[in-house]
Amino acid sequence: MTKSNLPLDADRLWSDIMALAEITDPARPYTRRSFTALFLEGRALLAQRFADAGLSTRIDTSGNLIGRIEGRDPSLGVIAIGSHSDTVPSGGRFDGIAGVGTGLEIARALRDSGTRLDHTLEVIDFLAEEPSEYGLSCVGSRGMTGALDGSMLDLVEPGGEKLRDALRRIGGDPNRLDQARRSDIRAFLELHIEQGIVLESQSLDIGVVTSIVGIRRIEIVFEGEADHAGTTPLHLRHDALLAAANTVGIVRRVAEQLDGEGSAYFVATVGILAVEPSASNIVPSRCRLVIDARTTNPALTTRFVAAVDRESEVAARAARVRRSAFTTLSDGPPVACDAKLQASLRAAARELALAQTDLPSGAGHDAAFMSRICRSAMVFVPCRAGKSHAPEEWADRDAIAAGAAVILQAVKLLDRSLQAT
Amino acid sequence: MTKSNLPLDADRLWSDIMALAEITDPARPYTRRSFTALFLEGRALLAQRFADAGLSTRIDTSGNLIGRIEGRDPSLGVIAIGSHSDTVPSGGRFDGIAGVGTGLEIARALRDSGTRLDHTLEVIDFLAEEPSEYGLSCVGSRGMTGALDGSMLDLVEPGGEKLRDALRRIGGDPNRLDQARRSDIRAFLELHIEQGIVLESQSLDIGVVTSIVGIRRIEIVFEGEADHAGTTPLHLRHDALLAAANTVGIVRRVAEQLDGEGSAYFVATVGILAVEPSASNIVPSRCRLVIDARTTNPALTTRFVAAVDRESEVAARAARVRRSAFTTLSDGPPVACDAKLQASLRAAARELALAQTDLPSGAGHDAAFMSRICRSAMVFVPCRAGKSHAPEEWADRDAIAAGAAVILQAVKLLDRSLQAT
Repeated sequence: MTKSNLPLDADRLWSDIMALAEITDPARPYTRRSFTALFLEGRALLAQRFADAGLSTRIDTSGNLIGRIEGRDPSLGVIAIGSHSDTVPSGGRFDGIAGVGTGLEIARALRDSGTRLDHTLEVIDFLAEEPSEYGLSCVGSRGMTGALDGSMLDLVEPGGEKLRDALRRIGGDPNRLDQARRSDIRAFLELHIEQGIVLESQSLDIGVVTSIVGIRRIEIVFEGEADHAGTTPLHLRHDALLAAANTVGIVRRVAEQLDGEGSAYFVATVGILAVEPSASNIVPSRCRLVIDARTTNPALTTRFVAAVDRESEVAARAARVRRSAFTTLSDGPPVACDAKLQASLRAAARELALAQTDLPSGAGHDAAFMSRICRSAMVFVPCRAGKSHAPEEWADRDAIAAGAAVILQAVKLLDRSLQAT
Repeated sequence: MTKSNLPLDADRLWSDIMALAEITDPARPYTRRSFTALFLEGRALLAQRFADAGLSTRIDTSGNLIGRIEGRDPSLGVIAIGSHSDTVPSGGRFDGIAGVGTGLEIARALRDSGTRLDHTLEVIDFLAEEPSEYGLSCVGSRGMTGALDGSMLDLVEPGGEKLRDALRRIGGDPNRLDQARRSDIRAFLELHIEQGIVLESQSLDIGVVTSIVGIRRIEIVFEGEADHAGTTPLHLRHDALLAAANTVGIVRRVAEQLDGEGSAYFVATVGILAVEPSASNIVPSRCRLVIDARTTNPALTTRFVAAVDRESEVAARAARVRRSAFTTLSDGPPVACDAKLQASLRAAARELALAQTDLPSGAGHDAAFMSRICRSAMVFVPCRAGKSHAPEEWADRDAIAAGAAVILQAVKLLDRSLQAT
């Protein structure tokens, strides 16, 4: 397939993405975090382009920016396409934005070709998919699916602002979240860069996502004693780091075992390990580590947690320290993508003669929340070396356009086939 | 032995220590760090008590506070007693201060008993034995022994002040350090709390220190890649923490082997392990750890470093990361305490009917530098549960007085016996 064959304008889609990339903290490209002035500036640009494309535009009470074209038969409900326009600090130009741009370009391509769908089409820029300063991800898609509860609204960022007040500032309404909850959406489709190397390493165009991993985060704290590193014999120490370091190895070994069984995707990571008091001449008295475990099969998480629980306790005893916490910080279940939507995406990719594969998503996405209220599925496009959440994040113009074309084609297929279900 | 039998005033010595303890950052008892206003306040108290004891008092060009009583025969040179009055942050009331107070009380006890020594006696409060904000320990004893070089004077603390300027502020003179170098000291004796549990656990009064450990500090940096914790398969990761955690285990295992041989004291500690970027959903890209290895036998350090070098490189390869640094941060050799001084201390303890043992010092002390220019030795007194560098640091009044009495008695013995050498 070449660019000229595509049923949409690859350059126009690319220019949306690049225009948003310009709206960044200049000192830390690419940074446009939720709730900041830069984020609102990006949203203003998007809202203008939504309006230019003929979409009626609003912000719902959960702070999502929504563009809409009424279908020929409003009773059929909505087909929605979207992702998010916020970034992590020093993030990339494509994570999220490529998916929002895809929705916008599809709306324009339909208009340009004089195509009016039977279903109403919505393009959604979900609020705060990245954790932001509140440490909470997927704020907008939580709100749209009834998963944003009052305790979350009371979260406070380091500057002192409550999430409920930030939401109001964005154009949402924390007292009327009910109004953002939807029951009229029939299908949700999201394009995203893969953030991995499966597609690139196999020279594939399209990944049809079969499921989105569940993520369990666990905190473990070991408490020992801050003894003098010169005068305390080894066998009398209570070295918290010794137990924590041992646990890093345990996490890796157990994860390799479970992933090696081949029944499902499984990865686990210790990304945080903090040592106190952190002085070269003092035996560490306290270590805190955070484990991130992800899988498409929750039974593996259960086995993982049981093994790490048991073995880290042994590591604590061996180091003569106390394991004072083994806490679940968060626990999102894996989500299977909708079979019918996956089939439509595969068919669309075949029609466009694109090379495709099925694959799980190791990252969380708004689509995981949307699956609570409607059929949901995702398309991945290749990104260079799998790099994401970094300035060097890169996806080719034609790769994004090919993914967008698959979603456009799938939308057309679904506009008919959903009526039969 | 009871308190009343002592040839000095235990209560008077105790009151010096408690008076200095009052001079502390009230928010973080007991904190009186070098170069601070509190440190100068403590020094003013000491200088007053030195003067009250009949000592002529001065500050040398290396910033040491020195009190002096001329001997009957100035040509015999000096017997010096001392330690330091600075503390670590949230430190204790005895580390260092007990040794300075001991020198002061000995001067008073000699005066009270009408004893005039043949040798000149000096009581020394060494500047900045603790690392202070400059990260450099033993500033004053380095200066007195010619081990304070120009590059050290250019060290800058976080507030921006150079060590040479801080030294000037304390009353020293960075341009005339030569004047602080001494060749007239014949013997140096230091009392210090043990900072370990050997004496307490064996119900002993006195530890005669045989040697002071050498300390080698090594920094190791592992460089991997900051990959997505959800989308990067385990076998494709470059996880810097995996290598660093493995190295923590290596350090402990090798140290246990060397110490277990029984030929000499050996301990090693990983007190610092810093992870970047330290986010739960990102594979660690960089880990820095600092190893502190201490022994009385430098051959063991050589073997330790060789083993850790070899095995940490294997750990790096296994984790698919690069070991980008294996750097010696500092390397102080072990120091044997002077045999003649040790013999005098043992004899003094026997005369006073105190229960004693020989033991190595696992901590560094000013006495290690002083051994470069004169016979040097140390007395340890028990401290509760081995705790030091912490507010709960504790030594009993009578335990300190007993240690001071041993040094007083040894000084009397040495005042004669040194003339024969």
